[in-house]
Amino acid sequence: MFGVDMSYFRDNIEQAEGYKPGFQPRQSDVIKLNTNENPYPPCPGVMKALAGIGPEQIRRYPDPLGDTFRAAAAEVNGLGADFIMCCNGADDLLRIAFAAFCDENHPAAYPVPTYSLYPVLAQLQNCEAIEVAFDGEYNLPPKLVGTAAALTIVCNPNAPSGTFISVPELACLADELTGVLLIDEAYVDFAQANCGELVRELDNVIILRSMSKGYSLAGLRFGYAIARPELIAGLMKVKDSYNVGAVAVAAATAAIKDQECHKETVERIKKGRALLTAQLRALKFVVPESSANFVLAASRDAPADKIYQQLVERNIYVRYFDSPGLADKLRITVGTSEQNDRLILALKEILAGQE
Amino acid sequence: MFGVDMSYFRDNIEQAEGYKPGFQPRQSDVIKLNTNENPYPPCPGVMKALAGIGPEQIRRYPDPLGDTFRAAAAEVNGLGADFIMCCNGADDLLRIAFAAFCDENHPAAYPVPTYSLYPVLAQLQNCEAIEVAFDGEYNLPPKLVGTAAALTIVCNPNAPSGTFISVPELACLADELTGVLLIDEAYVDFAQANCGELVRELDNVIILRSMSKGYSLAGLRFGYAIARPELIAGLMKVKDSYNVGAVAVAAATAAIKDQECHKETVERIKKGRALLTAQLRALKFVVPESSANFVLAASRDAPADKIYQQLVERNIYVRYFDSPGLADKLRITVGTSEQNDRLILALKEILAGQE
Repeated sequence: MFGVDMSYFRDNIEQAEGYKPGFQPRQSDVIKLNTNENPYPPCPGVMKALAGIGPEQIRRYPDPLGDTFRAAAAEVNGLGADFIMCCNGADDLLRIAFAAFCDENHPAAYPVPTYSLYPVLAQLQNCEAIEVAFDGEYNLPPKLVGTAAALTIVCNPNAPSGTFISVPELACLADELTGVLLIDEAYVDFAQANCGELVRELDNVIILRSMSKGYSLAGLRFGYAIARPELIAGLMKVKDSYNVGAVAVAAATAAIKDQECHKETVERIKKGRALLTAQLRALKFVVPESSANFVLAASRDAPADKIYQQLVERNIYVRYFDSPGLADKLRITVGTSEQNDRLILALKEILAGQE
Repeated sequence: MFGVDMSYFRDNIEQAEGYKPGFQPRQSDVIKLNTNENPYPPCPGVMKALAGIGPEQIRRYPDPLGDTFRAAAAEVNGLGADFIMCCNGADDLLRIAFAAFCDENHPAAYPVPTYSLYPVLAQLQNCEAIEVAFDGEYNLPPKLVGTAAALTIVCNPNAPSGTFISVPELACLADELTGVLLIDEAYVDFAQANCGELVRELDNVIILRSMSKGYSLAGLRFGYAIARPELIAGLMKVKDSYNVGAVAVAAATAAIKDQECHKETVERIKKGRALLTAQLRALKFVVPESSANFVLAASRDAPADKIYQQLVERNIYVRYFDSPGLADKLRITVGTSEQNDRLILALKEILAGQE
């Protein structure tokens, strides 16, 4: 029944292209700096929690709300457990937020360039996406206040720029908006501050956290929301009833409980980031100060897509976005110091070949 | 900013009550026959796969499509891997289908009584839900053809009746519909046939499968879709890009590969079901022939809610739905033979006390 003009899908779905995840090479012998994974393994407690999973936890339905994780995350954030909702990766929360607040008459707004999933989710939800351009320094665009969006999203630290907007600025924005402000803190573990405290006073703020980057759990799919209990209760109506499995809850709970190990890993990445930034700048890349576990680097000497391709030939993967404001830049995940060194060495070779 | 008349949520979300999952008691010493879990542990290969998970699989993003599972499920179903999509539990697929096909102008339709999640998803997607009543024998309602729904769902075997509609009848329905037919086969592992073959000829059929019941993986969250590659490609645009984690994919792949163990477990449950049905009928319950891992039982002698309550007092949990067509019935999961025996004994006591 599929014909040229005929589709079973809604028009917005038919027209959608879907999200294109970063390339996930199967080989393990590549240097993979393209999807912002943590280069260090999860803390030992995570593997211990996995080893402790018994057949009963697999056989039975999980706790629908993941309360053991909620309690642990509440303690780390100094809030009540009713401020927390577990998600099947942070993307699950983004999808839930679009479904909860946006439709044909309720647009979403966000500064660009930013996480490329937001426009995809807007299209799937069939809502308008109001994109407000960052200035050259990725400051919070004042125009964001005037959009009347039902859902405003600020990725902070921003992907792919790595730049950070201060907590007081975001508090002011939330206060001025008539809709909800979702602060996407997927990378906040590597930043100088976070917006967690804002939910005490502001009833329209949702904080998104990911366990993929700061806690090395990308393979598991686990993220969470922080917001006032009234907002959490509404979001819970939208989430799948059993959106997080028992294994993921056990592992994520073990991860967030070991703050000491977590902080050690984060410090190593921050040190690596400082060195990598300096080395890239020495190679005449323009690199904004990053608060994330990646840097955005624009070469003054060679086109980004060409460098990208030559890195691939050396089995080094970074991320190249062929999109407005990004086509001259590479997003490079901070790896282990050995990985960073090999990247810099390769860049030196590639740029030398340019001359 | 929350006031009496003010909400940040869309109206349909504000009005939604959300899905109420069956009670999940924390204690392990109860007889839990209320949420249709498999009473037997997952096959040994599942626990072996879990034990084999290394830190690298946790640290790195998973394969976005879960291709190892797709290949294994394709082989079991005698189809190509491009006919398969992995889901974070079968509920994930139901949500995806509503988002893909339904909106204010594109209704969903399904026979009732059935799985109580369908109307919840319709409300979240803000689409009309056309509910067509089953007759007393749960035959396929002829009126289902005339609804002009964009998405028609038939749960087969149906929950909570356990009844089965034949494959040719569903093939005819699909052929007559102008929209998509989603056949929810969450319980089909316990039935006499399945509709898997229909996707070869029919481009508007989506088959839903769950690994929760037949494979004892409820705690993990894993289900999958079977449909022609054109439909699968569209559904994939709607799913979260990394909707299934690496641990779930590894365990589900191990589970579906061990068909011998799976079939043994299923046979034990079918035998238990036959005995339980006979015993309930001997206690003057009306019990339709079930093709699932549960039975729907209506007592001629006592109100269902009263029996339910007295079972709870004995630490035995079955499912009671206070809703049209179901308020006089109990849905009872087929447990181990010991659990079934203890249920029957308790029912004898309860019914004797009624006299």
